[in-house]
Amino acid sequence: MSQGRKGISYWDYIRVEDLLSLQTGLHGDESRVGNDEVLFITVHQIFELWFKLVIRELEDVRAVFRQNPVPDQALSTACRSLRRCVTIFEVAADHWKVVESLTTRDYLAFRDQLVGASGFQSAQIRQLEILLGLEDELRIRCAGEASYKEVLKRHDGGTTPALERVERQLASGPSFRSSLYDWLARTPIDGSSDEASVKAYTDAFLASHAAQAKRLVESSGSALPEMDRDLLEKRYQREVDNAHAFLEGRDLAHLSDEEQRKRRHSRAALVFIESHRELPRLAWPREVVEATHVLEQAMVIWRWRHARMVERVIGRRVGTGGSGGVDYLDATAQRYRVFDDLWTVRTLLLKSELTPSLARPEDYRFRIED
Amino acid sequence: MSQGRKGISYWDYIRVEDLLSLQTGLHGDESRVGNDEVLFITVHQIFELWFKLVIRELEDVRAVFRQNPVPDQALSTACRSLRRCVTIFEVAADHWKVVESLTTRDYLAFRDQLVGASGFQSAQIRQLEILLGLEDELRIRCAGEASYKEVLKRHDGGTTPALERVERQLASGPSFRSSLYDWLARTPIDGSSDEASVKAYTDAFLASHAAQAKRLVESSGSALPEMDRDLLEKRYQREVDNAHAFLEGRDLAHLSDEEQRKRRHSRAALVFIESHRELPRLAWPREVVEATHVLEQAMVIWRWRHARMVERVIGRRVGTGGSGGVDYLDATAQRYRVFDDLWTVRTLLLKSELTPSLARPEDYRFRIED
Amino acid sequence: MSQGRKGISYWDYIRVEDLLSLQTGLHGDESRVGNDEVLFITVHQIFELWFKLVIRELEDVRAVFRQNPVPDQALSTACRSLRRCVTIFEVAADHWKVVESLTTRDYLAFRDQLVGASGFQSAQIRQLEILLGLEDELRIRCAGEASYKEVLKRHDGGTTPALERVERQLASGPSFRSSLYDWLARTPIDGSSDEASVKAYTDAFLASHAAQAKRLVESSGSALPEMDRDLLEKRYQREVDNAHAFLEGRDLAHLSDEEQRKRRHSRAALVFIESHRELPRLAWPREVVEATHVLEQAMVIWRWRHARMVERVIGRRVGTGGSGGVDYLDATAQRYRVFDDLWTVRTLLLKSELTPSLARPEDYRFRIED
Amino acid sequence: MSQGRKGISYWDYIRVEDLLSLQTGLHGDESRVGNDEVLFITVHQIFELWFKLVIRELEDVRAVFRQNPVPDQALSTACRSLRRCVTIFEVAADHWKVVESLTTRDYLAFRDQLVGASGFQSAQIRQLEILLGLEDELRIRCAGEASYKEVLKRHDGGTTPALERVERQLASGPSFRSSLYDWLARTPIDGSSDEASVKAYTDAFLASHAAQAKRLVESSGSALPEMDRDLLEKRYQREVDNAHAFLEGRDLAHLSDEEQRKRRHSRAALVFIESHRELPRLAWPREVVEATHVLEQAMVIWRWRHARMVERVIGRRVGTGGSGGVDYLDATAQRYRVFDDLWTVRTLLLKSELTPSLARPEDYRFRIED
Repeated sequence: MSQGRKGISYWDYIRVEDLLSLQTGLHGDESRVGNDEVLFITVHQIFELWFKLVIRELEDVRAVFRQNPVPDQALSTACRSLRRCVTIFEVAADHWKVVESLTTRDYLAFRDQLVGASGFQSAQIRQLEILLGLEDELRIRCAGEASYKEVLKRHDGGTTPALERVERQLASGPSFRSSLYDWLARTPIDGSSDEASVKAYTDAFLASHAAQAKRLVESSGSALPEMDRDLLEKRYQREVDNAHAFLEGRDLAHLSDEEQRKRRHSRAALVFIESHRELPRLAWPREVVEATHVLEQAMVIWRWRHARMVERVIGRRVGTGGSGGVDYLDATAQRYRVFDDLWTVRTLLLKSELTPSLARPEDYRFRIED
Repeated sequence: MSQGRKGISYWDYIRVEDLLSLQTGLHGDESRVGNDEVLFITVHQIFELWFKLVIRELEDVRAVFRQNPVPDQALSTACRSLRRCVTIFEVAADHWKVVESLTTRDYLAFRDQLVGASGFQSAQIRQLEILLGLEDELRIRCAGEASYKEVLKRHDGGTTPALERVERQLASGPSFRSSLYDWLARTPIDGSSDEASVKAYTDAFLASHAAQAKRLVESSGSALPEMDRDLLEKRYQREVDNAHAFLEGRDLAHLSDEEQRKRRHSRAALVFIESHRELPRLAWPREVVEATHVLEQAMVIWRWRHARMVERVIGRRVGTGGSGGVDYLDATAQRYRVFDDLWTVRTLLLKSELTPSLARPEDYRFRIED
Repeated sequence: MSQGRKGISYWDYIRVEDLLSLQTGLHGDESRVGNDEVLFITVHQIFELWFKLVIRELEDVRAVFRQNPVPDQALSTACRSLRRCVTIFEVAADHWKVVESLTTRDYLAFRDQLVGASGFQSAQIRQLEILLGLEDELRIRCAGEASYKEVLKRHDGGTTPALERVERQLASGPSFRSSLYDWLARTPIDGSSDEASVKAYTDAFLASHAAQAKRLVESSGSALPEMDRDLLEKRYQREVDNAHAFLEGRDLAHLSDEEQRKRRHSRAALVFIESHRELPRLAWPREVVEATHVLEQAMVIWRWRHARMVERVIGRRVGTGGSGGVDYLDATAQRYRVFDDLWTVRTLLLKSELTPSLARPEDYRFRIED
Repeated sequence: MSQGRKGISYWDYIRVEDLLSLQTGLHGDESRVGNDEVLFITVHQIFELWFKLVIRELEDVRAVFRQNPVPDQALSTACRSLRRCVTIFEVAADHWKVVESLTTRDYLAFRDQLVGASGFQSAQIRQLEILLGLEDELRIRCAGEASYKEVLKRHDGGTTPALERVERQLASGPSFRSSLYDWLARTPIDGSSDEASVKAYTDAFLASHAAQAKRLVESSGSALPEMDRDLLEKRYQREVDNAHAFLEGRDLAHLSDEEQRKRRHSRAALVFIESHRELPRLAWPREVVEATHVLEQAMVIWRWRHARMVERVIGRRVGTGGSGGVDYLDATAQRYRVFDDLWTVRTLLLKSELTPSLARPEDYRFRIED
């Protein structure tokens, strides 16, 4: 800090000189690094800075949902945090345009030296995935390694700051996903949280869903004489089957009975919240679900846009660090969905007049009105 | 037109009243159409208006490249047109955000009535694909129909304005792709357009490419002890094989000998133009190639973003008109690449010092200098 | 509508052919209109389509706030509508980039013929301003006319569809601004809506505000020895004076006593809502205020970006229709603020620990908690 | 650098840990800094990183134009650099949205401590202005200081890294503006660079300009009977006067005769390049002029968007460091135009058929054609 000033200066507060001295490349000497490579380093640094903000913010969001009960008011705070993260990812997705100002030749001029360094060594991206709750079995091995942690180790197997970041995050407790699903699993469905109520709502919903599919096959089939009616029927039948499988939790056999029950409840809650948003007490929960969904979408877009930048600049060649390059990136954009249930629910929802009518809507009013 | 004014008015020039009377929905009566549906109709109308502009502009670009020779000066005009189309697609890609302001429930409220109407009936999108030169065998059948033209017919098989648009476009002559590739096939490679020169350049390039792949296997392999060295070697070997297959035209057996020769030449020209952009006469050709590439990328982004909007709003359910919905849209984003060779070249390019040295670089200078 | 199909087709639903026939320019003949002019017409048509959506949506928002009381739940619906309008204006602001693909020469080629037609003849922009509640005295005369209605008349003074739109809007009742301010004027301040309570809160706030200004003069003054301490003191004193003038309604002398009281109350409510957002019942009101503010910002950005496009394409020349061109557009971006009080409040707000403490915070809790 | 690995790791290359340790705020202790303040610090750090890239890139552009002659081929390289800077500023303009996720209260929580630190202490923004060539007399005093350098000094008047950056930049030689205008002043006008040729072209252009203004007064005046014909005539007369003043250099009396001659030539060259872009040799010069213009526009948008963010978050209160806040920022957006002549030319240009016809267009062809 500079002495003699009564207040702090911009350059001390922002740490400008320290910050601008970190683009020294492979040899610790910026005079040997060209503009294109400084650009490449800098954009990655900017991503890391954004990721840090997002991680801090999502730690707070997770803390909200680890409370039981979650205070009503905290929902609006959580939404603000989630939306801030959305804005950051939307902004960050455009940074690939700056990287695309590199031509293939510009990038190749320094790329070979980067053997061994690759974006999948970004510890903060891994932290973010862990914090959100990405399931390990979804992860794609990028370069033949046993685990994503392998590529964060030293050559001799020793630890690194990157690995330590990831381990700290893993040790920090349940993910946001897990906390969010727990909160959903406590939501009263039509006024009650007992298992029978949840099942009654689910059954009514599934019956209406199947009836609607039947109607759509009939009307679509007749309107489109050219198409294969069998194909259409099979498509709708698959939708009906999927709805059953999801709401009855047929994919959850590996979990304990209690975990299965909670997950079925949380899935029913998602259907319930999205289907009855005109009920005052469901307004903020719906905002939370929406903001979470939008955040995941923003991250998917960022990942996919990354793949497009790489494809444009250097095509489909082998990635640095030996990864699959564009194919690896495209696969992460497609598979890395943390909030799978939120996506699935969108496929099931029914239009307003087909959703089950409620026995106790007044339970979702506020006791005082405007 | 209003009478009595000496000049034309804004509302007559823009045709405001006619324009604002076209959102009448299924029954020709706007009073029966809610805000959400008017939004849905309007966004599609806006897309059609943008498409019209793009088609007009690309007709002009195609006309430039159907000349032989193409005047040097026309290249900058063509670039301006291509960049305008890029801007339009970039802007249009954001319109999906407006559609995403519909919740699932909002959209379902009017969606069922749309059975039979689907975005794949947009004749202008088909026109655009035809004009650019999308190959028919890449097309994905969306609903079991025999051809994309089927869904543009009346129920009784009769013609429609949509089908007529497509037929007119098909009859309008060679595509932009075909004209562009023809122009590329006339580019002198290292000062000469004869087949031997082209082959000499290609062979030198392939030799350098193979040597580089070998070096990268060695350095990457040793730097990343954790990964499967065999996997890496196979990946690089596939790159070398692909480069040979591409530049030697092994995928072109179905074409006439002359067509094969031309296509090999145009591919060599792409490598040549991208590899030697410091030569003055290659500056504008490189801009043309780049602008075309960027346009295709912008269209891919628009298509993929469409898929994300649908997935977010209604999930992975059966599409209107019985199409595959999100899966169909994702498949078009992945497969519908018109300028395949431009993409492939990005995978092959070598860094500057590895590209073959030229015997006659002075052929690519201007005769007068600044 | 096409016959014979059981469902409606895309081209009938979207009215594609009608829509694409409206770019016929001055002479009703598209073959005489070049690409650049079609682009110019089309972008304006797209704006008109967006405006129509915004007007429909804001009619609904106004209807929410014309209720007394406004149901709590309706606030989330109103926010959704407001945010949709924000998205539309954000998207529309980027359309100027498409127009900027015109060079000066491109635009001049057809501009002279447009004498008499000008964007300030857009009736829907006027409707939007009326619906929101732009005060007439803020309006800038663009071309020496007596009123903005003059330029919507026929040469012989007769009415036009444009003028009729505006008259209908004027006759449609109180503006959104007026309805919103009325709702704010009913907000209980620290548990009570009587005038004394409002004044007590206001006085406490102003006292804290003045004390803070004094502290800031002292600390800033000493930290920045180079600057004119008098200048700084005057700046802060002006802030204190402005806060008094605003919250005590010194600018409202032209209104009735009752109107003055209501407006002071609504201003106090804005300070109150923004200062105590941790109170559950203030969460949605704060979202409403924020969404309204953001909408106005989005419109300001759209207007200012319009000015930049004009300045870039044709510089600061006289506008079509004889308007002031860029200067006129810049002036509208600067002056046309409908929700003046929302902007002013941002200048006054104090940090959390300086806001008056509340006597009855429990009045703003929900009676039931999660 | 980590030992034992054969290649470098991502975290060493990107300097992740060093980078993420710089958000420690006033007291050098991140644990005392909340999310909102970390966000505030981080966004400013990201701006500084972008500025560094822009400065490096523009140093290269300037170097191109300090050559005499400027090699033709270098123009395309300069355009690529300029466009990269445009992309960076476009991306950066959106970062204000992230800052806008702060509410007034969030920001006020830490703002008072920043007394003494202000964005106008960003040395790199000053470097950028100096490198581009912002004229000192355009600068706005933000807080009563004698010069913008004052606020970069220590309290005791001593030097700082910020001041040293600015001094180094000032010592680095002529600005890009000056180099660009020198290059323009060497452009042959209709085949000749002598003063008489330049004057002949200018005179012909001005005559055509005046005739056109006369025609427009006549047609506009009669078309708009409502408006003040005198007002319109005055507006057009001012345009004619301004055109004369500009092309005859009446504002340049303070310069040497030789400097005046050069500047008149460079202005004529701008008119010439923009008016005859169909001439092959003028295609790249026009791209350079356009890219420079677009860069300035992108910077103006970034500055203005900054003002809007501040106005939204904290209103029009006194800025940190005692500056004028929003008013200061708005004034910089309006006044800080480096390439004044490029803007002015847009106001003068005539449509194609009104520009003077050329005696020697063939001088602007290439000697070889496609």
